[in-house]
Amino acid sequence: MEVIKTIKEMQRLHPSLAKPLGLVPTMGFLHQGHLALIRQAKEDNASVVVSIFVNPTQFAPGEDYERYPRDIQNDLVELEKIGVDVVFTPSRGEMYPHGFNSRVEVDRLTSRLEGASRPGHFSGVTTVVTKLFNIIQPQRAYFGQKDAQQVAVIKKMVLDLNMDIRIISLPTVREPDGLALSSRNSYLNPKERQAALILYQSLALAKKLYRQGEKDAARLRGEMVRLIRKEPLATIDYVNITDAETLEELEGIKPPALVSLAVKIGETRLIDNVILG
Amino acid sequence: MEVIKTIKEMQRLHPSLAKPLGLVPTMGFLHQGHLALIRQAKEDNASVVVSIFVNPTQFAPGEDYERYPRDIQNDLVELEKIGVDVVFTPSRGEMYPHGFNSRVEVDRLTSRLEGASRPGHFSGVTTVVTKLFNIIQPQRAYFGQKDAQQVAVIKKMVLDLNMDIRIISLPTVREPDGLALSSRNSYLNPKERQAALILYQSLALAKKLYRQGEKDAARLRGEMVRLIRKEPLATIDYVNITDAETLEELEGIKPPALVSLAVKIGETRLIDNVILG
Repeated sequence: MEVIKTIKEMQRLHPSLAKPLGLVPTMGFLHQGHLALIRQAKEDNASVVVSIFVNPTQFAPGEDYERYPRDIQNDLVELEKIGVDVVFTPSRGEMYPHGFNSRVEVDRLTSRLEGASRPGHFSGVTTVVTKLFNIIQPQRAYFGQKDAQQVAVIKKMVLDLNMDIRIISLPTVREPDGLALSSRNSYLNPKERQAALILYQSLALAKKLYRQGEKDAARLRGEMVRLIRKEPLATIDYVNITDAETLEELEGIKPPALVSLAVKIGETRLIDNVILG
Repeated sequence: MEVIKTIKEMQRLHPSLAKPLGLVPTMGFLHQGHLALIRQAKEDNASVVVSIFVNPTQFAPGEDYERYPRDIQNDLVELEKIGVDVVFTPSRGEMYPHGFNSRVEVDRLTSRLEGASRPGHFSGVTTVVTKLFNIIQPQRAYFGQKDAQQVAVIKKMVLDLNMDIRIISLPTVREPDGLALSSRNSYLNPKERQAALILYQSLALAKKLYRQGEKDAARLRGEMVRLIRKEPLATIDYVNITDAETLEELEGIKPPALVSLAVKIGETRLIDNVILG
């Protein structure tokens, strides 16, 4: 396994990697959700690059960029075990040198949900993903469905800008009790860890009510909000039912619909989602 | 010579073109300035693609998108003669289908000069150039120095977003009397054609004064403005002396400096520039 820290080295290396080449972009502190993406990438491609880069430009001011969990040593052990070909771990200065001034923007899709709560977040995501695509030139790139809006935004960017890359999204990996895996779960104390189940429980409720015939988005959302409010450690940021592709809010639920939410558990903001349909 | 109208066909074709591949992006109505770029591209590369696309998103509202000169039949004759491998001429709907919503932005560099006079212009340029790069995947792309700011902006975009393409700019091609070649010269009546010489004359004056030792940007600019004002058909949009790379305005002239101007001759807006240094 090669560990590459500079853009120049990565650009020199990628033509020699067996094709098709799969890329799994991550911010590190790898969990089973990441590893599922990597396993799929290995299955689909002749070689696999994993990038580890905590991208400062996708954190809004006051968010957790500084304290975002990092454990590069353990990440490298996991990646070596799973048999990745290349790990690309550039520094902040390597990716954003002095005078950096360009952006990739996807409009509309990014104005809702996470985009509304985290100004500038998706501009940071689309810009860094474009850079990684150009540096590594993969044929396929893998993203977790836990970040459903991120997947929709990246697919739209690839479509609009004619990037020659297939975007593959894989189902959210969950703990046995339903909590979606996230590097940010490491912020939770034991009480909060228990309270965090409310995200999945409210999504499970939505699924159940929809299966029982509830097609009114406002009523479904109302039931979810009511359940979440019973958890004293939880503060709702948003709960939304939208078209799964355009992310436009729905009145009547037409499948595939995306039920997504962001909830603060204590000081930790968590997101999760399910698809109805 | 193949003439390709769809993105899908172009994507299917480019892997079979001999490498290195050179791209010359144009808006058609080809003149000797374009042909000089194409000749250089042929010299440098094993195959050459010329794109012809009058890009609506780089025209500000009220500009000349609708009446911009077009002559695809004559363009194809010229390109066949010069021995281009592929001409890519997509339609507007092919490049910007319903729901298109993405942009590439370069900040700072685009806020001055043409960017200040033509809001949204460079966003249109960087977005369409990114699309063409992704669709055609050239190793080199060619641009005329007449659009000096466009060259600077595209080079910055390529650098910041790590696009794997060399940007090559070639000197402005001029008529024997000094007028810079431009598709928009076709708008000029004979009187205006004569008056349009004032752009080059004022740049020639700047060069002469600089060679004679004038290093004060305000004074140099003042002399240019005074000369242009003597031409009754000319209205100045801007005359600026800036750093050639950052496009920051200069007080004392440090080479390489860009002297650029936009002047309306009657209703026709023309631009030109020279480098001091």
